[in-house]
Amino acid sequence: MRDAAENGQLALLLEVTGTPKPGNVDRHRDYEGLRFEHFAAGAVGALSGLRLAAEGAPVGRAFERAVAGMSQQSGGNTQFGALLLLTPLVAAAGTDRLSPEGVTELVEATTVEDACDFYRAFDHVDVAVEAPPDDLDALDVRRGSDATDALEARGTTLYDVMELSADRDGVAAEWTNGLARSFEAAEWLLADEGPVYRRASRVFLRLLADEEDTFVVTRNGPEAAAEATRRARAVLDGEEDAEALAEEFVARDINPGTTADLTAAALFVALQRGLEV
Amino acid sequence: MRDAAENGQLALLLEVTGTPKPGNVDRHRDYEGLRFEHFAAGAVGALSGLRLAAEGAPVGRAFERAVAGMSQQSGGNTQFGALLLLTPLVAAAGTDRLSPEGVTELVEATTVEDACDFYRAFDHVDVAVEAPPDDLDALDVRRGSDATDALEARGTTLYDVMELSADRDGVAAEWTNGLARSFEAAEWLLADEGPVYRRASRVFLRLLADEEDTFVVTRNGPEAAAEATRRARAVLDGEEDAEALAEEFVARDINPGTTADLTAAALFVALQRGLEV
Repeated sequence: MRDAAENGQLALLLEVTGTPKPGNVDRHRDYEGLRFEHFAAGAVGALSGLRLAAEGAPVGRAFERAVAGMSQQSGGNTQFGALLLLTPLVAAAGTDRLSPEGVTELVEATTVEDACDFYRAFDHVDVAVEAPPDDLDALDVRRGSDATDALEARGTTLYDVMELSADRDGVAAEWTNGLARSFEAAEWLLADEGPVYRRASRVFLRLLADEEDTFVVTRNGPEAAAEATRRARAVLDGEEDAEALAEEFVARDINPGTTADLTAAALFVALQRGLEV
Repeated sequence: MRDAAENGQLALLLEVTGTPKPGNVDRHRDYEGLRFEHFAAGAVGALSGLRLAAEGAPVGRAFERAVAGMSQQSGGNTQFGALLLLTPLVAAAGTDRLSPEGVTELVEATTVEDACDFYRAFDHVDVAVEAPPDDLDALDVRRGSDATDALEARGTTLYDVMELSADRDGVAAEWTNGLARSFEAAEWLLADEGPVYRRASRVFLRLLADEEDTFVVTRNGPEAAAEATRRARAVLDGEEDAEALAEEFVARDINPGTTADLTAAALFVALQRGLEV
């Protein structure tokens, strides 16, 4: 059977295969310059980092290696956020504590060195992030590895970094909340029926309907994020067509990438808990 | 950068992503019970066997392990033939002799033990094959590992096994011909332009137009195989629409799987030779 690292890789592939996922690259839709094949190559490259996580390497180091491998394709940032969620999940599965409590224990134990490796990961790929508040300028992730001196001087752990971003970044919020939404959505996947690529679509829509996507906030503004969530609800209520919405959001470049990251995390947990492919 | 085993895995993913590939599962089409997600899981599972090949393990053993991993999904035989081509290619790349001559040297050196492992691979998955001639009944691959006594008694190597099947099996024919068509098609991929999933589609159509698919012969008969090749030519000549043909062939269950196997092999060679994703 597949081990935790392999299930992490498969979760990345099943996420991008899921369709329709309005605004995302999926089995049926590409962006110009960011295509399905880039996500496939990203998943191939990410495995060796996920394997480090499964084998007990520090979370920051495993993440940085996964991102380094993921970035070996020409589409740019395909799965940075998904890997940030998958790394502690795979590490938790590798030590047989794949639960919100187990992951919380694991992320709370991260160190300054984990934080430094997280910043180093930004050297591999351009990630769309918001500027931090002025007093945290020295910890701007866009500094990449140049920020490590500041991290060390302040004794900032990776968990601390995530806490500082949790109010404006859905991946960081999930990280500091025991990956609660990912675990819940995994149960939706397991309770659902039919092909996995359709289940992934439905989970994506439910997650987006439940909470605004911070990646859309960053790239398109708060009104677009509110609209995305409102219209995902309309799809679930049968008032909008998911395929038409997918076409429209791709045309408008409204890409709920954080919701896709959560979908990948949920797929991983579901695979570990017996989701059959 | 990706190593040879990773490029083997990516080739499997790019093959199934390529669309339209008339009659195949592809990015846009599934069969009932055999879906894109099964190919994704097959590619995840195959990697550890491909890694053995890259690291110099015997070809038969690496292939058997790749098939064992590939079969860890519920769709059945997704990539048996593709792995039979990829294993010697990855092994050749691992020893820096990725050429028709290098692969020939490698497959000619296979042993009786390689043949036994090849037969063991049939224990993992149902593969559609034709019955062998009566005098070769003891070597019927459908006997799986039960045939190993006969292989040992006769001193039959894996190369010998492939030679015995080369007149009715396109994968075996490719194996005993230095993978010449795969190397040629790799050059088509490299000379082409645009997204890889479209290049993969065009290579598939050219390969099918050039030669009848033996998997179609086995499953649908020689007339269907002749028709598939004739209509692939018509697509290349602009007389038929590839998307419409893809819909029709899936509906009629005419699946040119051997041509897909060759496409995966060509993608691997192209990736090793610098195809950018």
